[in-house]
Amino acid sequence: MKILFAGAGALGSRFGYMLFKNNEDVTFVDTWGEHVEKIRNKGLKVIIDEVDLGNFYIPIYKPEQISGKYDVIFVATKSMQLRPMLESVKHLFHEDTKIICILNGLGHVETLKDYVKEENILIGVTVWTSGLGGPGILEAHGTGKIELKQVKEINLDRTLSLVERFNDAGLNIRYSENAFQSIWHKAGLNCVLNTYCTLIDCNINQYGSFEKNLELTRAVLNEVTAVGRAEGIDVKQEIIENNIKNCFPLETAGAHYPSLYQDMKNGRLTEIDYLNGEVSRLGKIHNIPTPVCDVITLMIHSKEFINNNK
Amino acid sequence: MKILFAGAGALGSRFGYMLFKNNEDVTFVDTWGEHVEKIRNKGLKVIIDEVDLGNFYIPIYKPEQISGKYDVIFVATKSMQLRPMLESVKHLFHEDTKIICILNGLGHVETLKDYVKEENILIGVTVWTSGLGGPGILEAHGTGKIELKQVKEINLDRTLSLVERFNDAGLNIRYSENAFQSIWHKAGLNCVLNTYCTLIDCNINQYGSFEKNLELTRAVLNEVTAVGRAEGIDVKQEIIENNIKNCFPLETAGAHYPSLYQDMKNGRLTEIDYLNGEVSRLGKIHNIPTPVCDVITLMIHSKEFINNNK
Repeated sequence: MKILFAGAGALGSRFGYMLFKNNEDVTFVDTWGEHVEKIRNKGLKVIIDEVDLGNFYIPIYKPEQISGKYDVIFVATKSMQLRPMLESVKHLFHEDTKIICILNGLGHVETLKDYVKEENILIGVTVWTSGLGGPGILEAHGTGKIELKQVKEINLDRTLSLVERFNDAGLNIRYSENAFQSIWHKAGLNCVLNTYCTLIDCNINQYGSFEKNLELTRAVLNEVTAVGRAEGIDVKQEIIENNIKNCFPLETAGAHYPSLYQDMKNGRLTEIDYLNGEVSRLGKIHNIPTPVCDVITLMIHSKEFINNNK
Repeated sequence: MKILFAGAGALGSRFGYMLFKNNEDVTFVDTWGEHVEKIRNKGLKVIIDEVDLGNFYIPIYKPEQISGKYDVIFVATKSMQLRPMLESVKHLFHEDTKIICILNGLGHVETLKDYVKEENILIGVTVWTSGLGGPGILEAHGTGKIELKQVKEINLDRTLSLVERFNDAGLNIRYSENAFQSIWHKAGLNCVLNTYCTLIDCNINQYGSFEKNLELTRAVLNEVTAVGRAEGIDVKQEIIENNIKNCFPLETAGAHYPSLYQDMKNGRLTEIDYLNGEVSRLGKIHNIPTPVCDVITLMIHSKEFINNNK
């Protein structure tokens, strides 16, 4: 089984390393030249829980350098790079190539459907985390899990055996009927914490320290819940509210500045269009007003524009 | 006619100086000890359009030091200091003391009514600007004008002669039936520029440079207009939108960071409760949803809280 990681960033290289070490046939594709050169010439340096596990010579290419056909494509990009990445690797798909997508945010199935059949889309959500310590260097901590679902559930056998094989390598995937609910629950949390921390300019603990944080949280989540339900997802707002609350303590995620905050500070474009922006877009389709998500999306975009983020 | 400036900050000291120079009986009250001491010992140093006009020994007191009765109280505080200031000078009112209030923001008449009869409230709006160059130093530029209205229009004579006398000193007051409309128009502009510039972290020109600024503007102004009309004010949204647009060029107000932005940066509490916060409060009374003003008010308050502003 030929496995391609389309995107060998923090999460992609972590999962790729786990499968590679378990003797799977893993290949990386990435657009970051320095990262590609480093891994090709010196191997991927893997540091997990502060332990240097050595360098691993996982084949890596830039999209324009690679050919052949792959059985599984694990996409691991930023949300806005999903479509360009798929465009640049679509020549590597055969008729039954499966795509695994556990990107943050909403709306990815629509994009994936432009490239493969729905029975070949495995969509999900993860709590694994990871980081890069520079080009060619994976620096990760802890463990995690993945929830995954085949969008159209026919011929599940290949997917289930794939899950088993990935779990042999430690990815800790659970095939789950509720993956869409989990995607919305995670997106809901990000629609709140990512945006407010960025606009208020604070970390998660500080957000939680404001006595009326629940009012702010609900202003967004009421819209997320209404739109998600209109989409047929059983969004449980009280679960999201509770997940958010559990992030506040400094011992959990409180000291953390969310990824959107960091993207904004570091001059990058944000994933807002796959969070509150997608809620706004879907709200219009379902005729559900989303004034708070609308204005938050616009503020984040104006901040990107004014900061000249790219 | 004994005139008291309750608040001898930037605008108060500018108008007070103009009247004092025109031989009016002017007294200042202020709570800032250093400022009071400086003016008492060295006079108010007046610099207008970069020209040093000398030092003026205008009587100045702290609230607890002053007694006697005054015919006109010109309140010139920050919005949130209006009530505490009135509390501290109310012993200086006689039965027909008039209060002039041209503070920014909404909701001040309700406060003033707790201290004087409606026929003694002169409410309005100004485009005069001013600044302090430190304690005891007035630094101002340009000229301006004031629109003023007696809240309950009985016995207008005293008000009209007062307007005439103040105009002798150059204050350029126009008695106007439309003062409430003007207050709402100015507040509407501030509900947009003050808040968005603070949350996006930009100046007025940058706000205007974002291609979808009009969508952001309207998200707030639709609520301001609906609530203002429910209050019986003929709010003309297209005028406010146009006034906002006219602030964008660097030649007008574009390079300026609004006062709320500066208060936030300088660790002070903001006037948000007299802008979007008052729109939210009135919206609830009139059963008009104001989700955007609600969430903006909460974000500004959370930023004050997290920054430990006082």
